[in-house]
Amino acid sequence: MRVHHLYSGGKDSSLAAWILSQMGYEVELVTVTFGLLDNWKYAQETAERLGFRHRVLSLPLEVLEKAAEMAVNDGHPNNAIQFIHERALEALASLPEVERVSDGTRRDDRVPLLDLPKARSLEDRFNVAYIRPLLGLGYKTIRELTERLFVVDIRESEELQKADYEVELRHLLREKGIDPLEIFPKRHYQSRVLGWKREIRAQG
Amino acid sequence: MRVHHLYSGGKDSSLAAWILSQMGYEVELVTVTFGLLDNWKYAQETAERLGFRHRVLSLPLEVLEKAAEMAVNDGHPNNAIQFIHERALEALASLPEVERVSDGTRRDDRVPLLDLPKARSLEDRFNVAYIRPLLGLGYKTIRELTERLFVVDIRESEELQKADYEVELRHLLREKGIDPLEIFPKRHYQSRVLGWKREIRAQG
Repeated sequence: MRVHHLYSGGKDSSLAAWILSQMGYEVELVTVTFGLLDNWKYAQETAERLGFRHRVLSLPLEVLEKAAEMAVNDGHPNNAIQFIHERALEALASLPEVERVSDGTRRDDRVPLLDLPKARSLEDRFNVAYIRPLLGLGYKTIRELTERLFVVDIRESEELQKADYEVELRHLLREKGIDPLEIFPKRHYQSRVLGWKREIRAQG
Repeated sequence: MRVHHLYSGGKDSSLAAWILSQMGYEVELVTVTFGLLDNWKYAQETAERLGFRHRVLSLPLEVLEKAAEMAVNDGHPNNAIQFIHERALEALASLPEVERVSDGTRRDDRVPLLDLPKARSLEDRFNVAYIRPLLGLGYKTIRELTERLFVVDIRESEELQKADYEVELRHLLREKGIDPLEIFPKRHYQSRVLGWKREIRAQG
């Protein structure tokens, strides 16, 4: 039972990967890149430290271009992040060897988050199962589990070395002469997992 | 990390209990009764076979009376089942020793299911975490996991010996001279877990 799990190296996607492995799935972590930066390497590094298999999935630069346009028009990044995440899930689900896709989206997230019709549509269009281990968990539960499991580095988004969609999106905006700080929230903390806290081993 | 998990002995609440135990929680199963029948014993029996702690939680008969009234007025049981489930979660969450409550509600369920404001309200009013391990899982995933884990007996609701709210609700309707088959769907299959399929042991 292999599951392909969208992975940034952050605490949410790491926690979801651990839960999947505890549920008996063979977990393969997948990090998206648009080829602008090599920040996917941070996710690969964390995946290695946690003992999970890892691969990189290239998405067309046009997806990021479209997302940047949405972010500029909207003045905030929410729809852009949602757009990228949906395209990432579709690209992953369309690979012939993929039967199950998953991610670290949570109950309390606004974006990215697929509503019920979108989740079912993804499953039906690509004949996959879509698994979201954190969807039924609130922030208290996620905090207590991540604190128990992981050593985490939390910093402002602009400082953190991370394999998030956001990093390439900010980069592309800067290339276009747009200050990301005009679009992204000022104080926006992101997390990166550095390793297991104790003698916990991934089974994936 | 103890979690108190609403438990009927069915495959959904059994699967959710197993996932919680795999997440490192000490799981205590809790079966609701209104004192009309002793069908909570089926849940207790399944809990024992699976190796989980189990207790019974008595709810006031007025809750079931109100639910029966709703079912009769509506001509279908959905609001009644939702009403009972919300009262059960509240009764459990209000116990002084309870810090975390959970259930086996699923993404594709219509009832019982708490929407996001209700889930947050439960957490805030009773200062508990509310954990739903199956909320991010579709029917394919639930089917493949339960088939891997459990020996399951599936029968029509009227025939199955089970510790579901529905059993006492049907009983109360019959006592009032109302045929439950006029209110519940005609072909309504329910499941009861009989034990682990292989050499799988609960950690809870």
